[in-house]
This record gives sequence, C-alpha cells and structure tokens, in this order.
Amino acid sequence: MKPIQVGLLGIGTVGSGTFNVLQRNQEEIKRRAGRGIEITMVADLDTARARAAVGEAVQVVGDARAVIANPDIDIVIELIGGYGIARQLVLEAIAAGKHVVTANKALLAVHGTEIFAAAEQQGVMVAFEAAVAGGIPIIKALREGLTANSIQWIAGIINGTTNFILSEMRDKGSDFATVLKEAQRLGYAEADPTFDIEGVDAAHKVTLMSAIAFGIPVQFDKAHVEGITKLAAQDIKYAEQLGYRIKLLGITRRAAAGIELRVHPALVPSKRLLANVEGAMNAVVVHGDAVGTTLYYGKGAGSEPTASAVIADLVDITRLHTANAAQRVPYLAFHPNAMSDHLDVLPMREVVTSYYLRLRVADQAGVLAKVTGLLAEAGISIDAVLQREADEVGGEGSTQTDLIILTHDTREGTLDDAMVELQALPTVLAPIVRIRKEELS
Amino acid sequence: MKPIQVGLLGIGTVGSGTFNVLQRNQEEIKRRAGRGIEITMVADLDTARARAAVGEAVQVVGDARAVIANPDIDIVIELIGGYGIARQLVLEAIAAGKHVVTANKALLAVHGTEIFAAAEQQGVMVAFEAAVAGGIPIIKALREGLTANSIQWIAGIINGTTNFILSEMRDKGSDFATVLKEAQRLGYAEADPTFDIEGVDAAHKVTLMSAIAFGIPVQFDKAHVEGITKLAAQDIKYAEQLGYRIKLLGITRRAAAGIELRVHPALVPSKRLLANVEGAMNAVVVHGDAVGTTLYYGKGAGSEPTASAVIADLVDITRLHTANAAQRVPYLAFHPNAMSDHLDVLPMREVVTSYYLRLRVADQAGVLAKVTGLLAEAGISIDAVLQREADEVGGEGSTQTDLIILTHDTREGTLDDAMVELQALPTVLAPIVRIRKEELS
Repeated sequence: MKPIQVGLLGIGTVGSGTFNVLQRNQEEIKRRAGRGIEITMVADLDTARARAAVGEAVQVVGDARAVIANPDIDIVIELIGGYGIARQLVLEAIAAGKHVVTANKALLAVHGTEIFAAAEQQGVMVAFEAAVAGGIPIIKALREGLTANSIQWIAGIINGTTNFILSEMRDKGSDFATVLKEAQRLGYAEADPTFDIEGVDAAHKVTLMSAIAFGIPVQFDKAHVEGITKLAAQDIKYAEQLGYRIKLLGITRRAAAGIELRVHPALVPSKRLLANVEGAMNAVVVHGDAVGTTLYYGKGAGSEPTASAVIADLVDITRLHTANAAQRVPYLAFHPNAMSDHLDVLPMREVVTSYYLRLRVADQAGVLAKVTGLLAEAGISIDAVLQREADEVGGEGSTQTDLIILTHDTREGTLDDAMVELQALPTVLAPIVRIRKEELS
Repeated sequence: MKPIQVGLLGIGTVGSGTFNVLQRNQEEIKRRAGRGIEITMVADLDTARARAAVGEAVQVVGDARAVIANPDIDIVIELIGGYGIARQLVLEAIAAGKHVVTANKALLAVHGTEIFAAAEQQGVMVAFEAAVAGGIPIIKALREGLTANSIQWIAGIINGTTNFILSEMRDKGSDFATVLKEAQRLGYAEADPTFDIEGVDAAHKVTLMSAIAFGIPVQFDKAHVEGITKLAAQDIKYAEQLGYRIKLLGITRRAAAGIELRVHPALVPSKRLLANVEGAMNAVVVHGDAVGTTLYYGKGAGSEPTASAVIADLVDITRLHTANAAQRVPYLAFHPNAMSDHLDVLPMREVVTSYYLRLRVADQAGVLAKVTGLLAEAGISIDAVLQREADEVGGEGSTQTDLIILTHDTREGTLDDAMVELQALPTVLAPIVRIRKEELS
C-alpha cells in the first residue's frame, strides 16, 4: 500500500522536528502503523526556510490553501499557531475532508466547539496530542487510558517557561525579573513572554484537559488565569521552610457544585513528585476514582518531543481513517451527543482550597491574636503559623515582621472577604500576599 | 444499542473491582465508549464467593467453559492467573471467537507468541493493559503514545511488594527478613512471596514491555532475573551516602549488539524522580529518541487500580470489535509480519552498565592501591571510592573495613572476570557485594 500523504502547514521548530523524526524513524513507524506515512507537501510563507528544512523531494508552496486543495493529501498538520488564519485553515481543511493534526492549544481552547462540530459533520478526525504537555501522551491517557474512571481532578505543570523560572528563583534566590531575563537569554522564554508568564498558555492546556476529563465543552473564557509575575523570592523561601515548593499549576476539579478551572501559582508539598519536577519539564497528575493518583512526566515543548506527539496522532489516524465514528475515540473523550450539560465552571469565589497568607505586620503584642481571631470569626481554620523575628525580616531594630499563615480548606469567597477585613487592620502594613496551596492528596 | 456482553473468569480482588467500577461508573463509561459494557456472566470455582460479589442479576457458573460457550458473550476477561488452566481457557476463548482481556503477565510473557498468533488467526483482540504496572496506562503509552520513537530504553519499578520492602529497609534501616514479615502482615506481600521478591513478576512485566518497545517476540526465558533477597541494609545506607537509592528495576535497552532484558536491584541517583517512588507505587521511565525521557507513575496493583486498566481495554475493544486488523493496534505494537528478527536478547556478560562494589578488606596499607590497580589492568574505570574508617565498620580496634567503589560503564563480563581476581586477593576477606548502578540519563 502506498504511504498515507500528509501536508504540513507551517514549518518552524515543531514542523522541522516532525519532518525529521518521520524520516529518521520511517521504517519503524511503518512497522507500527502498518503503512508508510509521508509528508509530501509543505506550506510556509517563508518558502526558502521550508525548502531548506525538507530538501528537494517534497513539494513546497507559499499558500496553505494549495495543500488543502491537493486531493492526494489525507491529513493536514496545522503548526501555524494562533486563533486567526489557523482557525480558517483548519476549518477549510475539515471542509475539504482532510483529517487534521494540530499542536494549537489556543485555537482549540477557544474555538474547539466549532472545530469539533465541523469535523464531526465531515466525518474526519481532529487530533491534538501535541497541544498539551508536548511529548507526554497525556491526551491519550485521559481519553483512552483512564476511561474506567470518574476523574476527580487534574493538576499539572504544563508550561515549561514558568517552571524553569520558578526553579531558578528557588535555586538562586533571585527575583522574577532577573530570572526572566536569564530565561530569555537561554531561549527558555520568548521575546514576548506574556502568554507564558501570565498563565494563558497553561490555561489553554488545562481547558482542553478539563473538557476531556469531565465531558464538558471547552470554556477557556471561564478559566481563572493568574501568572507568576507577582511572585516574590521571599515567598518561595518561606514556602520552602514550611515544606512546600511553589509551582504554576493548571488545575481542574470536579466539585459538588460544578467544575473548577484555574491556573495560578500554588504551594505543593515538597515530598510530592510534582513538586520535584524542575526546569522546563512538564508533569500532569490525574486522580481518578478507580485508579487513584497517576502522574505523567516528560518534555512539554521543543522540536522533537512535540513532533513525537504529532506523529503519534498521524499513526492513530493512519489506522483509523477508514473507520467509522463509533470506532474512533471521540474528540473530547465523550461522544458528542453525550457531553455533560449540567457541569458549569465555578466562579473563583466558589472554589474550595487552602491558602498561604503573608502579612507584613507591626511587631507588637496582640497582632497575632487579632489576625487569628478575625480568621476564626470568618470560620477559616488555621493549619500552621510562622512568625518571623522582626530583626530577621527588617534588619536590626526593625518594628515590622512577617506573619505567615497556612489555612485549611476554605471557600475562596470567604477568604476574599476575610482578607478585606485583615487588610483594614492598622497593624497590617502592606498588601497581603495570598497564594493558594494544593495538597494533591 | 444493547450493551456489549462480557464474561469474567475468576472473581477475586481484581474481578470484584472490575465489576464494581463498571457498575459505579457505567453511565460515564457508556458516554465514552458509545455503548454500555456489562458483565453478564461470571465463572469461579467458588460460586458462593462469585455470587456474593456480583449479586443476583449476573449469571454465576462454576465452569469457565460455560462462559466461553455462551454465544452472547463478546469479550472474556481472564483473571485466573498462572500458566496452566488460564492458558487453556484463553486459547479456547480465542478459538470461540471471543476477544480477550487479561491481567496475566506470567501467561503472556511465557506463552504470548502462541496466544497472539492464535488471536491473529481468529481476528480477535487480546488486550493486557492490566498486566503491567496496574492502573498506569503504560502499555497504551508504549503501543500508541510513543509510536514516533525509536525507543532506546525502559526502566521501571514494576513490583509494588519489593518497592515497599526496599522503602521500609531504607526508612527504618531494617534488614530484608524483618521487613518482609512486616509486609506480609500488612498485606503488601503474599504468604508465598517468591515471585515478587525473586524478581520473577517484574521480569514477566519487563518482558512484555521489551517486546512492545522493540518489536521482538516475548522471551521471558532469556531475561536475567535477580531479586532483592540478598540485599543488606548496609548497602542501602552506603548507597544513600553516595547519593543513590536502591530500587528493584526491570530494564530493557536497545544496545548495538542486541536487546538487554534484566531485572535486578540497582542504584539510582537520588535526584531522579524514579528514585523517589516510594512504598507500593510503580513507575516506568521510557526513553525515546524523539521524546526524550518520559515517566509514568501510579498504583501498580490493587483491586480498582487494576480494574481501571481492565476496563480501559474493554472500552477499546467495544470501539474496535467491528474493525479490521489494520484498524486495530497490533498486539505487540508492531504488526505481526513486521517484527524484528535480528534483535537478540544479550547474555548478561554482554550488558554494559556501571557498578557499586563493596569489598570487606583488611585495614592495612596498600589494599586500596592493589584493588584499584587490578581494576585498572582490567580496563575498568573508577567513578568514586568510599573508604570507611575501620572503627566505624567493625567497632573499636577493628582490623577490617569496607571499601566501596563505583565504576563507570563496563561490560559485565569484564567485571565478572575482574571480580574473580579481586575475590582471590588475600586482603579481601568476604564475598564481594556487587550491585548494578543505573544513571538513567
């Protein structure tokens, strides 16, 4: 049988990696897939770059639509990125009856409902293993490996840039701005790092995992998104002393009232494997009611790790492109006519978790009693208190100190209200730092 | 569409878990699978136990062949275990055109070739996610998630009993026999723990992973199998001081001359996630040429974690039972007519790895020079040496001490020969302890 023909839209880092790995391992991949898989056509605005990447044997065009219009092409890989032209091209490829593989988390987290509906209508597959956690086969684990489970929660380190920055901040005691510059110099952060450091990229990814885990539509607009730009080296140090590391987590959880969907820095107990995922690595913890806690770890970005995921999708499609819908795995794990319609994404005030609070307070008698009394009145239960010596915090003769409080599980709205009251205390001298704490047990 | 009907052979811990999880999550599983999945018939020699587990609505029989003969049953789950009657029943189920799900690693590691050939002939699936690492979807990751890769090596903690024992030995400084008794009392070790502590169970599992990773037939008879019964608390302590933990690993590696396939205790750098997998948990590290290092962690045994894997297989079969062979994932990842015929399993003497050696030596001048000189002559390069004070080792006035040597990568045969010479030295006073060391980098 002749190889299945693949067209590639956009040949940057991941595209080149995909082409190279497919070439290098073609014999082994064919032995697995039962049929050869070949990229026969590449579209890139920079045709010279494309030509340099793929050599003379592959057709190179500047117009992506020429790929979509080619009747010999069975599968289109979209590696352009973004919500704009990528959305248009993916929809056109689907309309042309092509199966689509994409690494575009932003596109699917925002326009997934439209795209999957179009694909269902046309009877084509849209595969996106590469969109979440790079080379880690987490989409496959969630969609197929854990189908027995009522999934309870997912918590993941799903952005390598921010994890690299947090690891460096902890290792070197440096502040955010310094480490960001270093990360940019090393290529771990982009020139415009906004999507990474503000948590948007992680929110795209956790939105996709949430939909797959709970059978709900993608709802990126309802995700709570908080980055790491405001994290102080001081809090990383205090957390360490209390037995925690701070990680940027993408979290989604099935609560009684609905689904939690949130990205923010969080204290994680140091003894958890997830807390020990360092540098640019990714890891996702999935808790199912039957399987318990499982963890998936690997490279979340980069040329060949991401290519590994793209090609796994190509192999799946090569096997199943002649299958019918019932024989294929549903786009978002649940059959389109069996999605949940009653699981709303909860507003942050309804989320229940525990907290780390740091209060800069006047170093005088009665402050701790006042603060803890106020929390008690609000029904917020305290897990631990760390009061620093004023001298250590503010230097010799300081009249200020840091009061660190770890709470037990609390509804966020309750804590928000209590924080307003705490902030109003005359002995609280600076804006209170609040970081969520996830025990992941 | 009416539910797909499943017959269960053997309803112990995992069987009950499978029945219970299928019941509890039936609505969610159906929304994923596109069709209900029901266990409608159970066979167990202890029909009273079976009846107690499944209630009145399910047909209970004492004869497994009645399940196989039932034309309404599409899938047979084999949870009897062992090589004997289980082999016969699996072959009969296949002959009767039933798809088979099994958790029986022993059966497949030894008789896999026969069983998969029979299944191919009949056009039925044989799925075995539950056979390796319990609830962790590692078979799916290897067979489907990493298809882009030329897999380089796999190293796994794939036996919970031994990992529990090693964790306890380290935590408490206790010796093997003491901890084994404790593990038996707690239910982490069976009354006859031989298969676990001698490494046989881990060898069954790594044999299956090796076949899937490299496209070779299952060859349990060629695996090197070494358990943990001879491990001394002292070596766990020395390893710790050198920055390592000792784990029982199942390892398979693609070397230039062939495939390594081995189970033995090994020093693993403490900073690796794998070294921090404690208690009865399992984890598997897979290194692919494109994806790099990935890790999969979770519960490797137990009722519902294993049921999670069994049911994932049921869902896959429910989707694909009407598909043709080209649309299904090959039994051992590679299509049966595209298995490797040139990758032999290497004898242990041809394995290349690094080593921890402990020599009980006379505490006198020149011993270290003699030992290291002998290693140098053999071409074995030394990474680190730890020489203990005689007083610490043997008590006040002791004339003996421990010499610990870490080597760089060495061919095992070369080391074997050198050890014979070392052992013959008059200043080497006891049998040399040799433990392999795996950097996993």
